[in-house]
Amino acid sequence: MLISELETPAVIVDLDVMDRNLSRVAGYCRKHQLLLRPHTKTHKIPELAKRQIASGATGITVAKIGEAEVMLNAGITDILIAYPIVGAEKTQRLSRLAEQANITISLDSEEAACGISDAATRQGSRIGILIEMDVGFGRCGLGNETDLLTLAQKITDLPALKFKGLTFFPGHFSVAPEERAAMRVQVNEFLQRSLETFSRAGLPVSIVSGGSTPTAYEGSLFYGVNEVRPGTYIFNDRNTVAVSACSLDDCALSVLVTVVSTAVPGHAVVDGGSKTFSSDRFQAGDGGGFGIVKEDAAAEVERFSEEHGHLNIQRSERCYRVGDRLSIIPNHVCTTVNMHDEIYGIRGERVEEIWRVEARGKVR
Amino acid sequence: MLISELETPAVIVDLDVMDRNLSRVAGYCRKHQLLLRPHTKTHKIPELAKRQIASGATGITVAKIGEAEVMLNAGITDILIAYPIVGAEKTQRLSRLAEQANITISLDSEEAACGISDAATRQGSRIGILIEMDVGFGRCGLGNETDLLTLAQKITDLPALKFKGLTFFPGHFSVAPEERAAMRVQVNEFLQRSLETFSRAGLPVSIVSGGSTPTAYEGSLFYGVNEVRPGTYIFNDRNTVAVSACSLDDCALSVLVTVVSTAVPGHAVVDGGSKTFSSDRFQAGDGGGFGIVKEDAAAEVERFSEEHGHLNIQRSERCYRVGDRLSIIPNHVCTTVNMHDEIYGIRGERVEEIWRVEARGKVR
Repeated sequence: MLISELETPAVIVDLDVMDRNLSRVAGYCRKHQLLLRPHTKTHKIPELAKRQIASGATGITVAKIGEAEVMLNAGITDILIAYPIVGAEKTQRLSRLAEQANITISLDSEEAACGISDAATRQGSRIGILIEMDVGFGRCGLGNETDLLTLAQKITDLPALKFKGLTFFPGHFSVAPEERAAMRVQVNEFLQRSLETFSRAGLPVSIVSGGSTPTAYEGSLFYGVNEVRPGTYIFNDRNTVAVSACSLDDCALSVLVTVVSTAVPGHAVVDGGSKTFSSDRFQAGDGGGFGIVKEDAAAEVERFSEEHGHLNIQRSERCYRVGDRLSIIPNHVCTTVNMHDEIYGIRGERVEEIWRVEARGKVR
Repeated sequence: MLISELETPAVIVDLDVMDRNLSRVAGYCRKHQLLLRPHTKTHKIPELAKRQIASGATGITVAKIGEAEVMLNAGITDILIAYPIVGAEKTQRLSRLAEQANITISLDSEEAACGISDAATRQGSRIGILIEMDVGFGRCGLGNETDLLTLAQKITDLPALKFKGLTFFPGHFSVAPEERAAMRVQVNEFLQRSLETFSRAGLPVSIVSGGSTPTAYEGSLFYGVNEVRPGTYIFNDRNTVAVSACSLDDCALSVLVTVVSTAVPGHAVVDGGSKTFSSDRFQAGDGGGFGIVKEDAAAEVERFSEEHGHLNIQRSERCYRVGDRLSIIPNHVCTTVNMHDEIYGIRGERVEEIWRVEARGKVR
């Protein structure tokens, strides 16, 4: 099939660019002896998770048990669920998963640890635990080494759990490289204090897992880190470009759309809006706009309705006609892919692969 | 099943409130002799579309052909696709649909009209056309009566199309009632000029379709309007409350979530973020926040990550513990429901219905 035969809106992935993104991060991790555990929430596609493993990843990361179930069904057996799993049904599902795979969970509370321990004990399974540190993003995680050690000691006392180490997500590092460097100083101090505290207490920390796509090539600069979990890097997006973590040419994914109206002067409407792209904002700069039109740098993706993308073309010299096709790089690929049942792998003008987004909708 | 047995996050709909919302709008339309054609993009569930018809709707509105296909498969045969349908594949699917159902399309260009006419002629089907007016939202639609008449005359000359009337979407009316009243004056002048122009030209306009949920009880105040297309009213949401188009008690839908972390002081994290709620902003007031916590008016839904809802609880006196359950009314129900494969109808503490969101993901 040719791209020109795809109905729009359609999410298309340039396979050459994707392959290059996979190799580059895998190469960096090999060179710096970092374990690579990509976050598959970006694509939710078992086939792509397998390619990440084939290109050097030691296992994968997911956010929800439902995602882990999909990946395990596809034969992937080393899974970090980077999310505190809470509730009777969920801990039971988790314990069942852990019978068939090497499952690790991140958490930051005794309540979560006890719930998982109870369920795993009943099931007779064993679950690895990473304790989450808050390194400044202010989402989950404990903020000092004393609390980390106290929780780790409680976990070592609980049956069916194995304390494996520490984890953090530097979500606030979605900024320019020089700002990341300044922030890293504080994170490294916290990491060093924590690892020294654990060492003094005689509690081995085998995994220190951190990192994101904006820090994909900075993993070796974090104190003690031996595993990284980038997600977005497989496709990249407008936000990643904006924080200089990739170039525009490294954006593998775009959304093919059709112009459906040019009736309002200075504007064109395309057939994809927030139900196609998500309404995630542009985190960098002035926060404006919702994507990059590859064919026309002067066009601004100004606004989304649910099914309409509003292009401001007042500064453009291109002639827009109903029926024209454009491709738009989204602000945030992870939430874009999550809107679709399938996406397309392309090479040149050909559609070479069709992938089902199998873990889409696994909100639980 | 009891609500307490639902795994979270789960979208729950209070059936009593939903039924009241359906009756109230249907009652208003009956009283004012307006045809009611609800926009089913809000729920994408055939069973709810059927209840809307049972409560008085003359037919339904959808945004995409894929949604129309789902609704037709469920036996609904009077469908307005309020979207310009462009492209060979799509116009062919449309023409096939029109063999089995009464299908109307809105559009604003000769290109779209010719494409549909060509496909319908080949298929031997007939498609109703509403021409879209831009009444100030600046999305789709022609902005003056001369252009409307010119396009209508072209459409009457094309085979397989039947010109039925005019349509508009007052998307910019998501504001306070007094602002809506001021804006309505201009819209009514445009409507009156247009209808007089068509009348002088001897071209009958049988449908004038307008309206949205913010104007759900103002349909009779628009000049010449005889059909309205509210969507959100079935559930309502934080945006609808903010523009005084409903009260908080009229919000039928909320998302049941669980607290998964309280490690960061002054904050609590729940297990639903942008992949559960969407990241649609609050359009009213200062635009801040992503929902209303029903159990705690002092908690602020401050931010969403993909799977984390960040609650700021600094002003709250409630004690938040890991494992607590809360229910959150979203900013925008239409994009929230679209994230889910199924949603739950509840009465009191019981889950009475489970609906599959059958048209979710029908982006084409």
